[in-house]
Amino acid sequence: MKEISKLLDYRPGIKVVDATLRDGGLVNDFRFSDDFVKALYNANLRAGVDYMEFGYRADKEMFDESKFGPCKFSSDDYLRSIVGENNTDLKLAIMADVGRCNYKEDIHDRSESPVDLIRVATYLHQIPTAVDMIEDAKAKGYEVSCNIMAISNAQESDVSVALDILGKSPVDVIYIVDSFGALYPEQIARIANLYCEFAEKYDKKVGIHAHNNQQLAFANTIEAVGDGVDWLDATYASMGRGAGNCAMELLLGFLKNPKYNVYPVIQFIESQMPAVREAGAVWGYDFQYLMTGLLNQHPRTAIEFTKQGRKDYAEFYKEILLQD
Amino acid sequence: MKEISKLLDYRPGIKVVDATLRDGGLVNDFRFSDDFVKALYNANLRAGVDYMEFGYRADKEMFDESKFGPCKFSSDDYLRSIVGENNTDLKLAIMADVGRCNYKEDIHDRSESPVDLIRVATYLHQIPTAVDMIEDAKAKGYEVSCNIMAISNAQESDVSVALDILGKSPVDVIYIVDSFGALYPEQIARIANLYCEFAEKYDKKVGIHAHNNQQLAFANTIEAVGDGVDWLDATYASMGRGAGNCAMELLLGFLKNPKYNVYPVIQFIESQMPAVREAGAVWGYDFQYLMTGLLNQHPRTAIEFTKQGRKDYAEFYKEILLQD
Repeated sequence: MKEISKLLDYRPGIKVVDATLRDGGLVNDFRFSDDFVKALYNANLRAGVDYMEFGYRADKEMFDESKFGPCKFSSDDYLRSIVGENNTDLKLAIMADVGRCNYKEDIHDRSESPVDLIRVATYLHQIPTAVDMIEDAKAKGYEVSCNIMAISNAQESDVSVALDILGKSPVDVIYIVDSFGALYPEQIARIANLYCEFAEKYDKKVGIHAHNNQQLAFANTIEAVGDGVDWLDATYASMGRGAGNCAMELLLGFLKNPKYNVYPVIQFIESQMPAVREAGAVWGYDFQYLMTGLLNQHPRTAIEFTKQGRKDYAEFYKEILLQD
Repeated sequence: MKEISKLLDYRPGIKVVDATLRDGGLVNDFRFSDDFVKALYNANLRAGVDYMEFGYRADKEMFDESKFGPCKFSSDDYLRSIVGENNTDLKLAIMADVGRCNYKEDIHDRSESPVDLIRVATYLHQIPTAVDMIEDAKAKGYEVSCNIMAISNAQESDVSVALDILGKSPVDVIYIVDSFGALYPEQIARIANLYCEFAEKYDKKVGIHAHNNQQLAFANTIEAVGDGVDWLDATYASMGRGAGNCAMELLLGFLKNPKYNVYPVIQFIESQMPAVREAGAVWGYDFQYLMTGLLNQHPRTAIEFTKQGRKDYAEFYKEILLQD
């Protein structure tokens, strides 16, 4: 049982990362208005959020700029158009996907960029490229984190090897990522133990990025807090791919550090989120996501089910059972 | 950390209680059609659910029969009209609220009733009456459980006294009830420890009834499973007061006993729940419930906010902060 003092007190080392534009952008092709992004930036400032992720820095050779909003590429110029020089305590982050980011050219020296943190996202089998990206970003002066995605269907021994490789790299934070929303809190406890073991050995921090397929994104995140995980991803109103993420409004309500304030989050959700939904963005817990989460599958079939407006849940369950 | 074997294996002693008609009835004045109730009964049979709660046995002197559906009173005759003699493994339950049930007259001998389990619901300050109801039901031949409601704002020492009194009573199961959806899994772990201590001393079982105000109803329920709690309340599609309850479809997906089957639950939700929503019943996680949960308040203000169709979440948060 966790110490009672940990629930009432707080760890100053905890960092909250707003991933609304990045994970949320996956459900509206990153078509956020400048007003929305500015309002989110201001809400994060007032809420005491530590990092704001602006989006991906996707390779413009691979992705057609006309088909996405600016947060798909989150160029330094775009960020500056929103936040100026960002002389605040809120740090800025972008995500760089292995294989989808021309990092050597598109990530510039930190001295020329408003970005503070590069978040490298990788699958297990791409770890060597991830390490190259980490070293590149570190050499350019950034803080660097690394998300190992889709670990719920990976071998524990492979994850351990990856953690050892990352431990020896200059990365600052290693993230537990429950891409399929398939993990239960008891599993998070064991995974956090494993990650923290390597983090301690190599002097790194551990983070968590959860998905809400089984309504456990918040529960898994606070489980991880109790297990020594310090970096916590959340999104406003859970906005994110499929069933969405850990809700910022739940997380800030839970955290006890007086620097956090849930009220600006509520104000933002009330004033900004209805228009995003009206524009057609769909996300959040629903039965089809529960099913892919339960079966530890990628949510792509559930996302397609949602897009088609299907409601034949039983038929869908049979379909995805047959894919197993 | 919990033993890994407990997550993959199962405890045969676990009992799943479907509370859809009873807690769900609170959001539609118990106006369920006979077809709905029969379909639910059949779904429970096929899903391997252990107990089905039909509703309250409310005092007809206190409540006007014309203003509620039959599950408000769940008379023996009504139950028989749905299930006949119920010669199945699915046991039937009704709830008897302290102060709202004329138990001496309205609860008949078990030999004359299709009911198996009487669920006594009480606040802490009503425990002596609850014990009288427990003794009455036990003398009439029933299994008996007792829900102590609203413990999240009770003194631990008072709860201990209540548990000792109930321990000495003939009750079979004592329920942890998170009426306000205010408790976090770490608190559930400590509360379960306390309840299990008394249960062990007096040879009782412990149950949990959770609410989803902070999206933790399922998480708290499976936390409790890991802590030795055996009786688990759930409702189809979370149907229940305010933010609703632990979802049956999540719970049966988690439990590993081969007698449980989530598929009939999905079929029922697909075929029966849309009509209930279309008829005007509103329930489920929403920001206003998060707020009352966060502040450990009764959800009545959030229910009223929902009824009025209000969306001014920030104003509502200020209103309920001032009530503290």
